[in-house]
Amino acid sequence: MRSLPRLLETDELDFLATGAWILGTGGGGSPYASHLGVRRFYDEGARITLIDPDELAEDDLVAVVSTMGAPLVFQERMTDAAFAVKPVRAMEDYLGRSFRAVMTVEVGGCNAFQPLLVAAASGLPVVDADAMGRAYPEAQMQSFSIAGLKMYPHAVSDVRDNDVIIARASGWHEMERVRRKVCTEFGSVATTCQAPRTGAEIKRFAVLRTLSQAISLGKEVHRARGAHEDPVEATIRAASGKRLFAGKVIDVQRQTTEGFLRGTLQLDGMEGDAGARFDVAFQNEFTIAWRDGAVTATTPDLICVLDSISGEAIGTESLRFGQRVTVVALPSPAIHCSPEGLAHVGPRAFGYDVDFRSVFEATQGGRA
Amino acid sequence: MRSLPRLLETDELDFLATGAWILGTGGGGSPYASHLGVRRFYDEGARITLIDPDELAEDDLVAVVSTMGAPLVFQERMTDAAFAVKPVRAMEDYLGRSFRAVMTVEVGGCNAFQPLLVAAASGLPVVDADAMGRAYPEAQMQSFSIAGLKMYPHAVSDVRDNDVIIARASGWHEMERVRRKVCTEFGSVATTCQAPRTGAEIKRFAVLRTLSQAISLGKEVHRARGAHEDPVEATIRAASGKRLFAGKVIDVQRQTTEGFLRGTLQLDGMEGDAGARFDVAFQNEFTIAWRDGAVTATTPDLICVLDSISGEAIGTESLRFGQRVTVVALPSPAIHCSPEGLAHVGPRAFGYDVDFRSVFEATQGGRA
Repeated sequence: MRSLPRLLETDELDFLATGAWILGTGGGGSPYASHLGVRRFYDEGARITLIDPDELAEDDLVAVVSTMGAPLVFQERMTDAAFAVKPVRAMEDYLGRSFRAVMTVEVGGCNAFQPLLVAAASGLPVVDADAMGRAYPEAQMQSFSIAGLKMYPHAVSDVRDNDVIIARASGWHEMERVRRKVCTEFGSVATTCQAPRTGAEIKRFAVLRTLSQAISLGKEVHRARGAHEDPVEATIRAASGKRLFAGKVIDVQRQTTEGFLRGTLQLDGMEGDAGARFDVAFQNEFTIAWRDGAVTATTPDLICVLDSISGEAIGTESLRFGQRVTVVALPSPAIHCSPEGLAHVGPRAFGYDVDFRSVFEATQGGRA
Repeated sequence: MRSLPRLLETDELDFLATGAWILGTGGGGSPYASHLGVRRFYDEGARITLIDPDELAEDDLVAVVSTMGAPLVFQERMTDAAFAVKPVRAMEDYLGRSFRAVMTVEVGGCNAFQPLLVAAASGLPVVDADAMGRAYPEAQMQSFSIAGLKMYPHAVSDVRDNDVIIARASGWHEMERVRRKVCTEFGSVATTCQAPRTGAEIKRFAVLRTLSQAISLGKEVHRARGAHEDPVEATIRAASGKRLFAGKVIDVQRQTTEGFLRGTLQLDGMEGDAGARFDVAFQNEFTIAWRDGAVTATTPDLICVLDSISGEAIGTESLRFGQRVTVVALPSPAIHCSPEGLAHVGPRAFGYDVDFRSVFEATQGGRA
């Protein structure tokens, strides 16, 4: 990999879209529209700088950004650069201080592009890190929460002229509930600038170099497609993953409840898995999988459902009867496998009364 | 009246409680608990300063405060001085500037005591003014909204450690909807520090000297009770009001919808009104009255329902079968009778397709 800081190249945006969507584990929203937004900026000749976390001074202040809300709404009310930068400006006004750089709260899904949109509007460099190493549905599931850092101030903006700053919060859950209500009032889509982080906090508590990892992963998938190799196999190799099941979608149950897309996916086995049945439950993201009724994988292992031919990730909102898919597991960042991490994102945090047993027992937590 | 600034006396707190509850026109929440909170502060020997709006310099900054939420919740989760001052401190932090004084958004109901609670915690003087001259259910019904002043920043606090600042809003209705959602998440009761006002704005756009008016009104009611005179008649005389109906409560329909207490009150006539029927509708506050099916009074005239014997105001949440009540009208502040005012608080603003015709035709708008 080239050393940082460096300018992101145009084809890397394509790789990032593919890789980030795989790391979304079914959620995080399709990167498609945000990717096009950044591409247009590149077509006009501008370039975005990626910097390594080690480039940050200890007291540099970094904006941690996201689009939040209902992924289906994202597809109609797309986030552009002006919308993405709005809460960053509101936060700078609130702090009376400027940011040195910008990073995403989650590399999985469309939020991989959120700091790039902010960079397009502001000229700030993008830090090669995030706070999840994937996508998760709630704010308190990020590494900064698991590390016990404070969760305020937190800015939430709509696309018109409304900005809310959560100036203090009594806890991550309380902050999450308030901003969720504000987001709903804003039309179920909002951009955020989360609690500012120092260079020291990022180097110690972020999930590091995840944009580069997503780009590398996407690049390998694209290479395999071009070489007529198996892109699913390429993903497994590039991300040290494991094939869990190959089959056909025979049923999808979906409910939009409490601002989340919850449901289950049923697969009938094909090829080596013929005769077996596989179920995966999701809350925006895939959280737990059963093979013939026995738990076989749970969060924080990444459970990804990929198109068996193209290797493209399939979002939980896009699953449908008849799709041929391969389910793979990718190893979790180490922080989510710690006792504190499991309390925030383990199977019990999603209501399943089972212990976490990684499908990567020997290499558990090896990714970060 | 004594000239200002001056210290409020203990018995004036009692008068204020009685007068403010009458000006609440059924809403605004009972001042009982807030009154006791300030009384305890007085019992400890402290005193609160009341200043005339003319005492303010043009660029003095004033905190406009309230408790918002469901009046029934106020009775369990009472506002104390620490809770009242919390959003004022959050706003000072946000502005990077200190307040010169504090005033209430509405003199009607418990919010008459809100600036006194803030004064108890902060030592700030209280401005003899409000932005409604009564109580109204929504933020955009205040005089500063009718005058077209901006509605942000606006701080909302809960009793624990949560503070939200609406840093920008695209309109008064949008601001109202966002803060209502935040308030609900905070447990249906929150304290606010609304958009800061300058001395110049207050002198021009507030409803002036309404705390003094409420104290005078309450004092006259107490005097009449002591002298075994009719306290209802005393209210009418002190506030230049008009008797509309005397009767017995025969039915109350009440629904809590969209965060408001909505419903209707039915009266059977007594004494001079025997044989007649009287209906009053409310949204927190009384908004429109019919005598034998014909509209006889509407907002912005103040419609007050008083206990026929004690002259004590009765809140819309406390109406019940069998109460002997007298309905009186009091004249509205002039700003609410202007075309802009009627657009915000006239009968059509509450969904009634009738024109406003004051019961005080000759003296319409004469109070302010």
